[in-house]
Amino acid sequence: MARINEHYAKLPGSYLFPEIGRRVRAYQAAHPDARVIRLGIGDVTEPLAPAIIEAMHAAVDELARRETFRGYGPEQGYDFLIDAIREHDYAPRGVAIAADEIFVSDGSKCDSGNIQEIFALAAKIAITDPVYPVYVDSNVMAGRTGAMGADGRYAGLVYLVGSEANGFQPEPPAEPVDIVYLCSPNNPTGTVATRAQLERWVAWARANDSIILFDAAYEGYISDPALPHSIYEIEGARDCAIELRSFSKRAGFTGVRCAFMVIPKTVTGTSPDGKRVSLNALWSRRHSTKFNGASYVVQRGAAAAYSATGLSQTRDQIAFYMENARLLREGLTAAGLTVFGGVHAPYLWIRTQNAATSWEFFDRLLSEAQVVGTPGAGFGPAGEGYFRLSAFNSRANIDEALTRIRGVFRR
Amino acid sequence: MARINEHYAKLPGSYLFPEIGRRVRAYQAAHPDARVIRLGIGDVTEPLAPAIIEAMHAAVDELARRETFRGYGPEQGYDFLIDAIREHDYAPRGVAIAADEIFVSDGSKCDSGNIQEIFALAAKIAITDPVYPVYVDSNVMAGRTGAMGADGRYAGLVYLVGSEANGFQPEPPAEPVDIVYLCSPNNPTGTVATRAQLERWVAWARANDSIILFDAAYEGYISDPALPHSIYEIEGARDCAIELRSFSKRAGFTGVRCAFMVIPKTVTGTSPDGKRVSLNALWSRRHSTKFNGASYVVQRGAAAAYSATGLSQTRDQIAFYMENARLLREGLTAAGLTVFGGVHAPYLWIRTQNAATSWEFFDRLLSEAQVVGTPGAGFGPAGEGYFRLSAFNSRANIDEALTRIRGVFRR
Repeated sequence: MARINEHYAKLPGSYLFPEIGRRVRAYQAAHPDARVIRLGIGDVTEPLAPAIIEAMHAAVDELARRETFRGYGPEQGYDFLIDAIREHDYAPRGVAIAADEIFVSDGSKCDSGNIQEIFALAAKIAITDPVYPVYVDSNVMAGRTGAMGADGRYAGLVYLVGSEANGFQPEPPAEPVDIVYLCSPNNPTGTVATRAQLERWVAWARANDSIILFDAAYEGYISDPALPHSIYEIEGARDCAIELRSFSKRAGFTGVRCAFMVIPKTVTGTSPDGKRVSLNALWSRRHSTKFNGASYVVQRGAAAAYSATGLSQTRDQIAFYMENARLLREGLTAAGLTVFGGVHAPYLWIRTQNAATSWEFFDRLLSEAQVVGTPGAGFGPAGEGYFRLSAFNSRANIDEALTRIRGVFRR
Repeated sequence: MARINEHYAKLPGSYLFPEIGRRVRAYQAAHPDARVIRLGIGDVTEPLAPAIIEAMHAAVDELARRETFRGYGPEQGYDFLIDAIREHDYAPRGVAIAADEIFVSDGSKCDSGNIQEIFALAAKIAITDPVYPVYVDSNVMAGRTGAMGADGRYAGLVYLVGSEANGFQPEPPAEPVDIVYLCSPNNPTGTVATRAQLERWVAWARANDSIILFDAAYEGYISDPALPHSIYEIEGARDCAIELRSFSKRAGFTGVRCAFMVIPKTVTGTSPDGKRVSLNALWSRRHSTKFNGASYVVQRGAAAAYSATGLSQTRDQIAFYMENARLLREGLTAAGLTVFGGVHAPYLWIRTQNAATSWEFFDRLLSEAQVVGTPGAGFGPAGEGYFRLSAFNSRANIDEALTRIRGVFRR
């Protein structure tokens, strides 16, 4: 008999976004004339920057001629992209990253789901709550947790609650953990960690010999240059942190697929016999065994996001989305809602009204305003009572969504 | 302390192809004027078919305009590709596959490395030997084996030896196993399973309640229409088999990245409480949690490989490579070498001369003929004494490689 991975049974029925999709489809089937505005899944809406389009066309043309054809590329990514990352993402912030410390991939969802593989099954995991579900689910599937309790928490997982009281930036855990997942600018709360907060995390990680998995997929949305963009701007982070970055939101690559991880060669874990082992070497082995490089055309497109033109065009896109975020934040606040985030991140985190559950708030917004958001409970127990809206849409849709939501809460 | 995955330490120092790359670079550094011909890693050399190029350009242009822009796609793949697969790969062979039984991905290396995740850690794994290393390494990394013994075999893994005596098509194991990996047309031996052989496998799997992971990445190279192209051409396979397909070799996508898996909804495994669980549902959960869809541009390119023009152009490419294979097979045989495969697969499996080890044969061919192949030992203990050459190259390089190899063995 073929024995299956029993840990999958611990997961609730459906991943968050498929469940949202199901409810929206059901609503639309019942109301075929309704024009639903989607501010749920954080998916970009604006076309790729012209510089990226041009580079992708050129790359396709290279594949059309024998002399310039490219087959298998380096699993870690092409130097032209890795060097652009080092030069434009890190050097200007005073951070030196070696070429072999960068691993290009087809997306941060894959990276954040796969990185747990290089750690022991016994490794103790801490997550913030609310949190991007992939961090939790991938560890559940690997068998690092027990069952989910009535409180919505998996046994064995350490939950660090983000609340209004701590500005959704919880403190490091008191108990020892092997790994903590941090995300800043944060999905879903839209808040951002300050330098002082990151310094506390790095000091904690070094004192406890723990690893920080730092998800900076929304780094491009930080609007204050004084805020750290990379965890490596913090002294000592090269000894304890892995950083994840993505082109999805920063260059509109949600359907194009490109991301990367930085694993400094100085970050180590511990083997059962007490030896220090390089996480860079472990991930390199994982990456070259189970991955065959991101698409050449995609990597050329990603590199073009760093050209002078590409940088200017993608910054304009981000400014456009962040103006959407400002309009949502101010408009929803004026409508009497309590809103967090949306200043250094494309997400707004809204307190549900009248103690509604977040799925009730979801259903209400869908049926009364035909606006789709994401219920906070989908991000963990501490997300209950909150609701996420994304700023990714056309200005006309943002304006229309605001008008409709104001109509609902004016009643 | 951050505890690492201890199982990685069981793997030998370097994955096969990086080690080959290292030896070739060392040789070229010492002999800068040598023109090395690479018939090692199975990487295509001919440009993408014009129909595919056209479709990829059109897709890039869609991403350039707001009205046609696509963000996140369905994790399982776009219907336009899934329907093309069903219509062109399966329907003509009398196989009905539902749309939700196909999972599009960014490559068969990922799929064959990741599929083990949905099975229990206690699952007993059988592999053929020699074998594509990813099947073995991904199970070692997951912790399904013990250490590697002096015989090059991992404890706990069931090895099914392919030999000249059995035509490199071993029989099903006598002992019970949960899962067997089969690859036909076979990498590395270039041999192909007959209908009768596949029937024996399916009968064995059903009798033993085992799962067959059937890797058909080289299906496009089968030249005899009477041979099964899909395991689902065998009665009963829908109850016990998962099939892997790739666009890498069939449409030149090694650097473009696209593949798919077929998991019939009728294939089940067993949970610890004895319940039958759909592997399709398990993989769907895995795929939607840790993967975000293959690149839109890439999926459009893959779909174009099924247009009338695309089919004709890609079939011409395959015919070109298979003529290379014929030339290699006949030329090497004439030079006195014993050669297998190369009729329904782009690989030739060559017996090393004078009882040379396969790495000795590798070094000899590199230093005396400046031809790079792949040592059989890299594919498992039973690969020792054999050597793989691939037919992927220009005709001029194939001719030149043959001339040089003949020169070596004429001495």
